[in-house]
Amino acid sequence: MSTPYSAGASERPGRIMSGEMAEQPAVLRRILDEGAPLIHEVAARIAEREPRFVLLTARGTSDNAALYAKYLLEIQLGLPCGLTSMSTTTAYGARARLRDVLVVTVSQSGGSPDLVASTRAAREAGALTLAVTNNPDSPLAAVSEYHIDILAGPEKALPATKTYTASLLSLYLLVAGVRGREGDAAAGAAGALPELAEAVLARQDEVRRLASRYRFAERMVITSRGYGYPTAKEAALKLMETSYIPALSYSGADLLHGPLAMVDNISPVIAVVTDGRGGEALQPVLDRLRGRGADLVVVGPSAQVAAASAGFVLPTAGVLEELQPILEILPLQQLAYEVTIARGQDPDAPRALAKVTETH
Amino acid sequence: MSTPYSAGASERPGRIMSGEMAEQPAVLRRILDEGAPLIHEVAARIAEREPRFVLLTARGTSDNAALYAKYLLEIQLGLPCGLTSMSTTTAYGARARLRDVLVVTVSQSGGSPDLVASTRAAREAGALTLAVTNNPDSPLAAVSEYHIDILAGPEKALPATKTYTASLLSLYLLVAGVRGREGDAAAGAAGALPELAEAVLARQDEVRRLASRYRFAERMVITSRGYGYPTAKEAALKLMETSYIPALSYSGADLLHGPLAMVDNISPVIAVVTDGRGGEALQPVLDRLRGRGADLVVVGPSAQVAAASAGFVLPTAGVLEELQPILEILPLQQLAYEVTIARGQDPDAPRALAKVTETH
Repeated sequence: MSTPYSAGASERPGRIMSGEMAEQPAVLRRILDEGAPLIHEVAARIAEREPRFVLLTARGTSDNAALYAKYLLEIQLGLPCGLTSMSTTTAYGARARLRDVLVVTVSQSGGSPDLVASTRAAREAGALTLAVTNNPDSPLAAVSEYHIDILAGPEKALPATKTYTASLLSLYLLVAGVRGREGDAAAGAAGALPELAEAVLARQDEVRRLASRYRFAERMVITSRGYGYPTAKEAALKLMETSYIPALSYSGADLLHGPLAMVDNISPVIAVVTDGRGGEALQPVLDRLRGRGADLVVVGPSAQVAAASAGFVLPTAGVLEELQPILEILPLQQLAYEVTIARGQDPDAPRALAKVTETH
Repeated sequence: MSTPYSAGASERPGRIMSGEMAEQPAVLRRILDEGAPLIHEVAARIAEREPRFVLLTARGTSDNAALYAKYLLEIQLGLPCGLTSMSTTTAYGARARLRDVLVVTVSQSGGSPDLVASTRAAREAGALTLAVTNNPDSPLAAVSEYHIDILAGPEKALPATKTYTASLLSLYLLVAGVRGREGDAAAGAAGALPELAEAVLARQDEVRRLASRYRFAERMVITSRGYGYPTAKEAALKLMETSYIPALSYSGADLLHGPLAMVDNISPVIAVVTDGRGGEALQPVLDRLRGRGADLVVVGPSAQVAAASAGFVLPTAGVLEELQPILEILPLQQLAYEVTIARGQDPDAPRALAKVTETH
């Protein structure tokens, strides 16, 4: 694990998070090389069962990965989807009628008791259940009919990074498989990602310069639309749990329905602009933000960055819009890391967090 | 419209919002007296069609009302639900397969083009469509198979208040009707609400005292669980769009998965504690917050308020847990109003907002 901070500085703040961020290209490669055939196999089994609705169950970072899957499932498969409100089962004992429903539970550890309980209840209620975890020996994998291992290796930093991108790629391959794309074709479309991820991660100096503008920020707004929206939510979560800056994420359309009042020249905005229809749909929001004099930083293609106050140019040429989220989050993970370091805090040691969160 | 601020002070900041908040008891009464039979009729038609899945489509304040309906539908009817990601239709042209799906679109104005487009597309894709609006002559009502009028009267303040509680009560009566409860029984359970709402709204002085602690707040966290969670989200939206304080809302369980790091003795927390299972499930989160020395203000039953730093006691005795959200939001609307006034701003004139938001 060679990172700017790990060599010869084993007690350096953030060294665990930094090391895990750096592993991401290798993890993506492992999924494509070793994981893809098994994911394709699970996808084929699910396709045979012809689910008509999908419920996605997750919390925290995994919830953002689940939201990414929701966009894929709705756009690519035309399947209506919902995100589970877990307390309806765990607190209120709701017994949903789940025939023809696929329940996908996403969890790094596969150990959170409420996820296990809610997935078990779904299976008993007739759902087809699939767990997507980083631990094939977890209780969640055990209670689910199918399991996909995201192959990210042990994750020790409290802010999840490599398991997020590993979940995205695994879910992408799953949906491509259910859609009937050949495993090879889907893996082919994603084939350039490891190398592109490596190139993006190598530009940490650029991110460090961006981070300096947020060192004293009291709040931030992060917006996107379509496939980039889960990226905005995950970036906000990462910034909050490491730097403690209140970072509010909104889809561009929701931002216009109220929270825009909060944006002014002291509330910086980060926009995640995909190269594709989501980015196009975000344009009126970006125009509105520029019109209000917002400090607008864009993560996206170069023309979008050029029209903003500053930004990070993503290599999107030739990358399917639905795969761009796997690259988009990388500079934003680094941004959370760098802002936290600049504020004199340790990204590896957020106050109050435990790695396996025991919610019931 | 007699309010502390309207008499003889027609240009007083916040007079429009204040007047509309004060109308809420009368609006609730109107729904019970005049609206309930029609809602029950619509509910019976929907029950006959036996939907198996529900998609809720809305933005902003209406999205929080839709989330309340999601809890009702899942808990009381066992129907799996999802909130629509609108851009999948409007930006990506997804064509979902919506046989057996009920699509409920909630919108005050019924005029937002993307809601109309997405509802029309859903109807063409085979969904049973229901619009819940404050305007029976709206384009949204016209494209939907069924329509429920929330009877709130014209809403002129930019921060929506009376249309929120009117939507909640209308959606409650709808779900009770689909469940097969007699219209009379459902209306009976809700019968005390107008009077209770009046009593709660009369205690604005208490809210004003609470507001003083937030005058200089740079951020706030609002949490709840179960039926109270939509209240937390709506309170955060109200605070942000009027006072511009970044207010972050989390379900109690999600708060433990990351954002808790942000809570310390300078980030005040408001907890919405229902008298029932949602409130019980929130207890471990409240204990954790108290253990971290958080400034914790509770809106809920008196025992819960007594164990917090401060709070607002809600009259929950004899009120079904699922109806408490209609009362819970009232002091929080007033809080947004009072904090905004205390900061020298005008709740009627949030920067940058238009009443009918033209998102596409």
